[in-house]
Amino acid sequence: MKLEISAELKYIIRSPSTLILNIHALRSQRQTVLEEALIVEPYVKFEELSSPYYENRLIRMELPQEEEILISYKAIVDNFYRVIDHTDLSDVPVAELDSSVFPYLYPSRYCQSDKLYRFANNKFGHITNPFLKVLTLTNWIHSHVQYLSGSTNSQTSAYDTVTELAGVCRDFAHLGIALCRALTIPARYFTGYAYKLYPQDFHACFEAYLGKEWILFDATKLVPLNGIVKIATGRDAADSAVASLFGNLNCKDIRVSCEMAEQNFEPLYYDPSNLKGLSYL
Amino acid sequence: MKLEISAELKYIIRSPSTLILNIHALRSQRQTVLEEALIVEPYVKFEELSSPYYENRLIRMELPQEEEILISYKAIVDNFYRVIDHTDLSDVPVAELDSSVFPYLYPSRYCQSDKLYRFANNKFGHITNPFLKVLTLTNWIHSHVQYLSGSTNSQTSAYDTVTELAGVCRDFAHLGIALCRALTIPARYFTGYAYKLYPQDFHACFEAYLGKEWILFDATKLVPLNGIVKIATGRDAADSAVASLFGNLNCKDIRVSCEMAEQNFEPLYYDPSNLKGLSYL
Amino acid sequence: MKLEISAELKYIIRSPSTLILNIHALRSQRQTVLEEALIVEPYVKFEELSSPYYENRLIRMELPQEEEILISYKAIVDNFYRVIDHTDLSDVPVAELDSSVFPYLYPSRYCQSDKLYRFANNKFGHITNPFLKVLTLTNWIHSHVQYLSGSTNSQTSAYDTVTELAGVCRDFAHLGIALCRALTIPARYFTGYAYKLYPQDFHACFEAYLGKEWILFDATKLVPLNGIVKIATGRDAADSAVASLFGNLNCKDIRVSCEMAEQNFEPLYYDPSNLKGLSYL
Amino acid sequence: MKLEISAELKYIIRSPSTLILNIHALRSQRQTVLEEALIVEPYVKFEELSSPYYENRLIRMELPQEEEILISYKAIVDNFYRVIDHTDLSDVPVAELDSSVFPYLYPSRYCQSDKLYRFANNKFGHITNPFLKVLTLTNWIHSHVQYLSGSTNSQTSAYDTVTELAGVCRDFAHLGIALCRALTIPARYFTGYAYKLYPQDFHACFEAYLGKEWILFDATKLVPLNGIVKIATGRDAADSAVASLFGNLNCKDIRVSCEMAEQNFEPLYYDPSNLKGLSYL
Repeated sequence: MKLEISAELKYIIRSPSTLILNIHALRSQRQTVLEEALIVEPYVKFEELSSPYYENRLIRMELPQEEEILISYKAIVDNFYRVIDHTDLSDVPVAELDSSVFPYLYPSRYCQSDKLYRFANNKFGHITNPFLKVLTLTNWIHSHVQYLSGSTNSQTSAYDTVTELAGVCRDFAHLGIALCRALTIPARYFTGYAYKLYPQDFHACFEAYLGKEWILFDATKLVPLNGIVKIATGRDAADSAVASLFGNLNCKDIRVSCEMAEQNFEPLYYDPSNLKGLSYL
Repeated sequence: MKLEISAELKYIIRSPSTLILNIHALRSQRQTVLEEALIVEPYVKFEELSSPYYENRLIRMELPQEEEILISYKAIVDNFYRVIDHTDLSDVPVAELDSSVFPYLYPSRYCQSDKLYRFANNKFGHITNPFLKVLTLTNWIHSHVQYLSGSTNSQTSAYDTVTELAGVCRDFAHLGIALCRALTIPARYFTGYAYKLYPQDFHACFEAYLGKEWILFDATKLVPLNGIVKIATGRDAADSAVASLFGNLNCKDIRVSCEMAEQNFEPLYYDPSNLKGLSYL
Repeated sequence: MKLEISAELKYIIRSPSTLILNIHALRSQRQTVLEEALIVEPYVKFEELSSPYYENRLIRMELPQEEEILISYKAIVDNFYRVIDHTDLSDVPVAELDSSVFPYLYPSRYCQSDKLYRFANNKFGHITNPFLKVLTLTNWIHSHVQYLSGSTNSQTSAYDTVTELAGVCRDFAHLGIALCRALTIPARYFTGYAYKLYPQDFHACFEAYLGKEWILFDATKLVPLNGIVKIATGRDAADSAVASLFGNLNCKDIRVSCEMAEQNFEPLYYDPSNLKGLSYL
Repeated sequence: MKLEISAELKYIIRSPSTLILNIHALRSQRQTVLEEALIVEPYVKFEELSSPYYENRLIRMELPQEEEILISYKAIVDNFYRVIDHTDLSDVPVAELDSSVFPYLYPSRYCQSDKLYRFANNKFGHITNPFLKVLTLTNWIHSHVQYLSGSTNSQTSAYDTVTELAGVCRDFAHLGIALCRALTIPARYFTGYAYKLYPQDFHACFEAYLGKEWILFDATKLVPLNGIVKIATGRDAADSAVASLFGNLNCKDIRVSCEMAEQNFEPLYYDPSNLKGLSYL
């Protein structure tokens, strides 16, 4: 499935600064970047960093002078995904879990799973099929948390959202992750470009580790699950920020687009009566 | 420097459980485990897990039945460390930081550096030598936070400690880490066995990334810095817990010892008039 | 209904201190203190303070020297209550609310109703009869929050309990109050001696202002609602602490008793099919 | 000292609502309202509520229909204050404190003095003169907390501000109050009109109970202490909100003015070398 994505970010630099961007489409076995270009105006040198721990592609740029810069990224991406039947799935006990996923089992800055243990287990602990368990908690978030732009800020965490019941995609994802981890299901934050997201912006959702695969979930239900271009995964937004700013600089404008570059797209959403999950990796 | 360490942990298992222990001395270039033994009574099978992301040695054991078990670990470790002069050290700007240390620059569960930015920069931002900066904040923690057993719990974080001003070694370390990160200095949690710690227990302190080395700091000042056997490092206690429990089981007793196995030990503490830091790795 | 109550408190004083106790049975129109005695050994002077704002009887004592003191309070109380039918009750709109109850409508230290607005309204906002609304939220607390001694501390607030779902009578009361206020129903903290409470201790529950009466609710359901001797009411436990300590002193022991001093007691609990509420004042 | 004050508030009402305003100049022994007028356009009936507990003048209005209303308040106020020399002031021990000020000694929603005990006592506990103690903590807030519009929201409390070190007048006042209470000095929230406040708005500061008088402090230092018209006092902003909204309505605009109506105004600020405090009541 080919998608055409773009992002334009405008920054005002007031002192020598460093900017780390995480807006490039990930290159992976299932996601091929056919074409891409990053243009910075006026010209600034930048480097792409390898990421030993997390799946992402970081661009670091030094911004030595006061000015306004415009960063434009464009790419055409070919994206594969698998649909996996989880009807017969049973829990992977911790005793069999691959230790590489342990980091996604422990609490993190915005996903205090340690504080949600009783809540998660009371509400969802009785569901035996782990896919249905995550799907049910995703649906619970969708029906209980109000999507409300501007209702949260960069400090808002899953512990706030579970009570305040309002937020944006980032908050929906953090709560989903925290609930999974409280149920001993590894889960991680996922950022991407999303087809049919209105208004267009970077999107955040999450992956749960089920049956030795990372399965995608999106409690916002704003977009079809199979129209997403992955940028990065991490423990939560602290790891996977679209931009990390060091110095005195501000983002003035963000424009994002994500269009289907081929025909015959059939949108996929989950259905509790049919336990099929989607995996990008 | 040879040290003899031991740990005895007693658990009561009430239902089939999984236990992940992180009590083994780390094997590293500078730390050689000369002898070691782990005995579980009654006998339980266990496996050592490789750790792709974090430096630790995890032991996982399945505990299928209701019983009381006693886990005994003993080792003799030969430990090297370097003393590095930081007199001429200058900040490594983010623009030159190796991306492998980025995970230690972002906020984590117990180290909300994003909330301490103004505090850290107001108090310590003016200090130009980064070793002196971290040493000064370590001394600030030591003189402002009261070491008080039982004053905190497993949910206590750096954000609490900076105001409540009481805690144990874990809290001292979390606050040190959070302040470093707020000053754009990567920092990580460090657990170990510590010579001359009274009462004996597992110890926690932290490492800051200075001049491309991980330098040890301990705001508790309870032990000489060169009498420590490293167990693990991680983002914070969420990553590096001595024990992670899954199931209905309880720790009933912990006994730890750490003795010098050679003579001529000269205890090393930091001195602000002499900018020498200690690195174990 | 006559009840015999007693409280014995042992304090260790380490420096000159002041102690304010709130353990006396309230004297009110509906509660007559037939006999009472307060004995402090060794003898210390104390005074009873009038309470202009809150309904309580405060005893203040100066403790000038290092020693151990034993405070013994005993009383026989005659207690009246009314059972009020709320079948036809409708909301008192804020526009008609007596301004004397406003303090019980706003958030307080342990009852952050401002943060629970969406939660309370989503869950209970649709219930039209205000008695049934409060009864339903009381039942929700009872069935979702686990009564667990030692699970909380003096800093635990309704905002914690609504997520962590464990606590003691104080936490149950704080959550009930916060939910009422979030629903624009004035609510206040209530402390007392409770018949049939095991193990015996001071008890906490809450009153909601319904139909111009303060109606008693107890989310713990540990005791019959009509076997309670009121000590005090306030905004939350910050106002109505059994003891406020100023100086270096510690409580070493508390013993409480509450016995029925007459026969024919018929325990009263609420029943959602029969909207009758109990009012002590 | 005569001052001319005014406030204009514009609300959009989207459903039948109740609005409680607290914008009237307080009538007290030391503050005489010479003239005043409240006009609501289009006309809406309103009532002034007596306040049994708190010193304020509440206006309640029912807003039955969807519309935009403009509320205009104007007054001329004659204001007296006393300047009190605190050079020889010593602490009023709790043992001698009038019980009517107890509510201002306990923690409240935005002033969690119970969490700031160690912080306050470490930093300010050694200062023996209580006026100097409060003046010193006020100066500490002024020099450590950045006045930054938009940095906080309606949930921000003293516990946040003491670490995050940014806020507006409300946050400065809450932190001052919390620190006083942690030092066993009763303190309360104070709202008013302030001469020379730029940009003009309602102002918040606090009063500490020293030597049996309520003495004014303002950690923002934005205005002369003797150019203030008192609106209300309370435990914190939960008690003394300028406006409490019940229903679906929004404030669209606020305009405030405060002008001196007589000549020869000599601005008064505190001076640590001269322990004179100002009391309005």
